[in-house]
Formats: sequence, C-alpha cells, structure tokens
Amino acid sequence: MKSMLHANEVRLPGWVYQACPPPSQLHRDRAAERQAQLTKPTGALGRLETLAIDLAGLQATDRPRAERASILIFAGDHGIVAQGVSAYPQEVTVAMMANFAAGGAAISVLARELNCRLEVIDAGSLAEVPLAGVVTDKPRAGTRDFSREPALNTEDVSFAFECGGRAVERAATHVPDLLILGEMGIGNTTASAAIAAALLAVPADAITGSGTGIDADGRKRKAAIIELALALHKLRSEEAKAETVLQYVGGLEVAALVGAIIAAAQRSLPVLVDGFIVSVSALAATRINPTCRPYLIFSHRSAEEGHRRVLEELQARPLLDLDLRLGEGSGAALALAIVRLACALHNNMATFSEAAVPDRGS
Amino acid sequence: MKSMLHANEVRLPGWVYQACPPPSQLHRDRAAERQAQLTKPTGALGRLETLAIDLAGLQATDRPRAERASILIFAGDHGIVAQGVSAYPQEVTVAMMANFAAGGAAISVLARELNCRLEVIDAGSLAEVPLAGVVTDKPRAGTRDFSREPALNTEDVSFAFECGGRAVERAATHVPDLLILGEMGIGNTTASAAIAAALLAVPADAITGSGTGIDADGRKRKAAIIELALALHKLRSEEAKAETVLQYVGGLEVAALVGAIIAAAQRSLPVLVDGFIVSVSALAATRINPTCRPYLIFSHRSAEEGHRRVLEELQARPLLDLDLRLGEGSGAALALAIVRLACALHNNMATFSEAAVPDRGS
Repeated sequence: MKSMLHANEVRLPGWVYQACPPPSQLHRDRAAERQAQLTKPTGALGRLETLAIDLAGLQATDRPRAERASILIFAGDHGIVAQGVSAYPQEVTVAMMANFAAGGAAISVLARELNCRLEVIDAGSLAEVPLAGVVTDKPRAGTRDFSREPALNTEDVSFAFECGGRAVERAATHVPDLLILGEMGIGNTTASAAIAAALLAVPADAITGSGTGIDADGRKRKAAIIELALALHKLRSEEAKAETVLQYVGGLEVAALVGAIIAAAQRSLPVLVDGFIVSVSALAATRINPTCRPYLIFSHRSAEEGHRRVLEELQARPLLDLDLRLGEGSGAALALAIVRLACALHNNMATFSEAAVPDRGS
Repeated sequence: MKSMLHANEVRLPGWVYQACPPPSQLHRDRAAERQAQLTKPTGALGRLETLAIDLAGLQATDRPRAERASILIFAGDHGIVAQGVSAYPQEVTVAMMANFAAGGAAISVLARELNCRLEVIDAGSLAEVPLAGVVTDKPRAGTRDFSREPALNTEDVSFAFECGGRAVERAATHVPDLLILGEMGIGNTTASAAIAAALLAVPADAITGSGTGIDADGRKRKAAIIELALALHKLRSEEAKAETVLQYVGGLEVAALVGAIIAAAQRSLPVLVDGFIVSVSALAATRINPTCRPYLIFSHRSAEEGHRRVLEELQARPLLDLDLRLGEGSGAALALAIVRLACALHNNMATFSEAAVPDRGS
C-alpha cells in the first residue's frame, strides 16, 4: 500500500535500524537502592531521584554523570517560508549561525556558563559559503516549498541522517556524558508542525503554534497551508511512514536531528531533548527505531502549541516548564543544570548509617 | 475584637513593620528594553526574561546577579509530634542539623555544587548543647504541643523574629546577591498546615499533606488534630492575625523564617522561597508586612498538598515543579541554578545590532 502511495521510498542507511543497547537494569536497581539509603525520606527528591536512576541505567554506572555535555545545533532553511509563515526574514537562519559561533546567542551564553562544547552544523541552510566556526555538512541549500512540491529528495533525507550520525561521531571523541541537541531554522516550526500532524494523525490546526511570534491570523494561515500540503503529498494516510513524512514536509536539520538521536542512543549516549522541534524529531526517531526511546530525557515543555501533544504521544514529562520558545537547545541546556545537581545529590549525599541519622520505622 | 479573643497579643519588634523599599521601576524598564534587543524573539526566553527583569528591579542594577547566594536553614522541634503526626522520630531534627553541618545532607551537597555559603541556625530544636557548625539562637527548646496548649509564648515569637533578623544581618556581611531560606523540623508540616489553614480560612483537611511520608489514615488524623487545635485556640475567626496564629500553632523556625523574609526584603535582598513551609512563612510575612512581597521569588511547587493553595493566595508561580518534598531549602537551591542562567543570558547575550542579525519587521 505505502509503496503505491509514495513510489520512491526513502532508503535510510542501514545503521539507522540497528537496535540501541537496553539500559542496565542492574545499575538501575543499585541506584534505586542507594536513593533509599540517602538521608532524606524516600522519594522526597522527586524527579531528581528517577533522573539519577535513569542515568545510572543508561550510563551503566554507579555514579551517573552529566559534567561533560556536548551541544550540537543543526541549522537549516525552509522553502515554505515563501508562504509567509514566519515572523522573521529567512536571512536570520544564517545570521544566527554566525551569532552562535561568535558567542552572542542564548545557547552560546549557556554553553559558556555550563562549560559545554558547542558545535554548530549547517545541515541545510541557504549559506553559499561555509561560515567560520560552523561545520558545513549539507546535500543542498534549503528545502523546497512543501506547499508545492516535496521538500526533499529521498537522497537528501539519507544524507541528513548521515550528517546527524557524523556529528554524534565527532562529539563521541570528546567522551561526553550526554548530548544536548538543538536547532535553528526560520520556518522550522512549520515543517515540524506538519511532521507532527502527519505522525500523530491530528488536524494541523491542533498542532500549529505561533513559532517565533506570528499573530492569530498568521497561525491560522500556517495551519491551513500545512493541512493542504499534507493532502497534496498524500500524508493523511494512517500508513504514512516517518521516513516519507520527513521527505515530503521535513527539513534537513530535522532529519539530521532524527539521525543524531538514533546514533547517540546506539552509542548509549543519553540525549537531552529540547523543545518542540527536537521533540518532533524524537517522535520521528522513535517511529523509525523505537529502541532509542529510553535514551531521551525531555528537558522542557515549550510555549509552542503542539508540543504538549507530541510529549503526550511520547509519554514524556519534561523537567522544566518556563514558557520558553526559543529553540537552539536553550531549554535542554537549562535542564542540564538540574541534571547535574541530581547526579551530585545521588553521588555525594550521606546515607542514614554514614550520618547516624535515625531512619523511619518500618 | 481581636484583643478580646487573644488577651496577650504578640508584640513583634518595631522593625518588622517598617516598609521595604519598592523595586526600581527605572531598572525594570531598562532591563525590559534590553531583553527586547537581545538576539531572540521577544518573550522567547519566557520566564527567564521576567526573572531577569524582576531581579534588575529588586537589585536596582543593569546587571542582575545571583552568583553570591547565602543559604540560611532554620531548624526547630515541635511538641505536636507527641500526637504521632510524623513518619520520623523527633531526634531526626537534631541529627539532620549535624548532617547539614557535616556536609552529608541534600542541601549541603547543593551548597557545595553551587558554591553557596550555608548557615544552619538552631532556632528552637530540642538540642541541649550547641552543635558544632550550627548557630544556636533560641528562646526555648521546641514548641509545646499545640493540640493542648499554645505552641509558644508571645516573647518566644518575638525572639524568633529577632533570630531571623540576626541571621539576615550576618548573611548581609557577605554581600549576597540573594538569599535562600530553608528549614528542618520534624512536625513542621503539621504546624505549617495549621498556620495556612488559619490564614487562608480553609479546612485543615484541604491543606494537610503527608509530610515526610505518613499514610492516608495518618494524614486524616493529622488534619483532624489541626482542626481541633484551631478551634481550641479560637483561630477560626476571620480576624485571626498572623502574629497570633504563629504564637498558638506556629514553630520557632517558622517564626524565624517570617522574620528573616521581612528583614531580607527591608535590605532589598531577594529571597528564593523554598517549598511548603517557607511558602507558609512567606504568606505570614506578607500578612504582617505586605511590602516584602516583591522580594519573594518562588522556587518550586512541592508535592505537599496545601502548597498549591498557599501559592495561589500569594499569586505565585514557582520556577520548578519536580515533585520535591524535602525542605532544607533544596528546591530553592535547585532554582538558583536557573536564576543564575537567567542573569547570564540577560547580561551576556548579543543585541540584534551587535550581532548584525535582522530583527523582525514591525
């Protein structure tokens, strides 16, 4: 059936479908046991306890760590911007990549404060020449306008997955404890809303937000454009595969994120998932390779409409809820501070017997 | 009327009623203006933006800061524990004070990680001799069982307010950017629930939680004990003053917290408010001296029932919601990490013109 709908199926690289290692149940159990012995009522540190236990299982260690974190920001441009879906001009994508590299953007400031390595990858912007301080790794400059034609060729999608995989490989040489994934791309909330509406089989209107700040009429128009595009590309079938959705209405930075998520999980690297766009990428990643799911730590609930629906589908409860809607990995970087403190508490608190504090009767 | 209900009115020290300086509107305006020029869509950093603007106004500065934070933990014991309201034995209060000082408790770990000064104040525990590393500043050892008699004398309440004031004075010599207030005291969720039920004029059952972990029956009994005590002490009148409520069903560490909050605000020191008990103290503080309200930054929504009601009354939306119910200032310390990053973003991001990024059209 699917092949009749979409004749040229995307063939992703074979590694994409390889299983990720399951978390270590042994280390999860040991971490839970330790939490019960620390000088506090069991459960009193709430989600910090489950976070430490999750990390111990993912990292297969008795001392979960988040000190060494690498931030990867994938950028791309979007042909759909021609339809007036964004409050900002398209040049902003390239200008912001330069700003990331120069140290002036939110994520640059956070990376410095948190002492994280930051790599910016041009996964598909309109930049005609490589930017200083940016890794250029793209099959084409920007996507096509998906309201009129498929955003990408099948080869573009595969290339973008490899781009994500290569970025994780580079990051892995620095032996990080976890990865932070972020994005930049004027128009990419539109592409992400289209992907989410297709994958969740919900009306575009229920998932489309105001992005960087279009008004109510603009939002309605954006939703209508998405709905028409999903019909045009025959993505309103329940059988629409994530690979196909990414090709027809996706973005190069989004496909690169999907590849990076899967590649990280395959290396047992936990991923701090940022806001709406990275969460949509995470949804696509779990559709393509469900074994990556345990490695995803959701950092924040963004102010973007539709994020709630995507998180619900992933049964994810993010750590923070601060009305952020910036992207760039900024929410994930903020959450890193909390993850680090959760690890410090797990590793460094005294036990009841060490501190000679009476435990509750049982 | 009130004086007929409660013959010996509490006379708090005069300074308690002195007005706190209003935040600087000039610096708030300048901070808001700067936020609009930073390389991000206006509002995209959500609550981090309002946080930076609030701090700029409170600190009357163009560069809000949260680097230097002092943590003050007030501890006290509670006679009401005789009624079996807590899952832990009363000795835990003193043992945990020693644990704070020795570096093994959650707040000790957080203080080290966050590079904060930590002072533990015995504001009224049962400890018979001063503990090493703890400031002893108490009028009596523990409160009386408020289910049978007033928890405190009027002089005890005044002493506790002065204890809070003295702690802030000591902290101020270290020139902190803000204060973190926390508490420890087996039985103090019961005292705090009683205070909140009286101040909010709601049934004790609606405000009483499981504290450090009593079961459903225990919680019901705890609520019934509080309701009876409020009737016994004639605190079910709409005119019950916060001062009186603190005397009849309060705690020494709670009264010290109220004093510390007011003293900090009078010195223009922002206070990161921890969970249920510090929030109840904050509620009492705003009843006694409403001008302290702008200086309160609410750090987290605890898992303790009743906290929601108290936050609602204070029109407060905390920064974090991580199911914490530990106390010790632990939630406020976690939030400090976020406050610091909000300041770094405000102070260090590039503006649109500095970074030559095109702004949106208007």
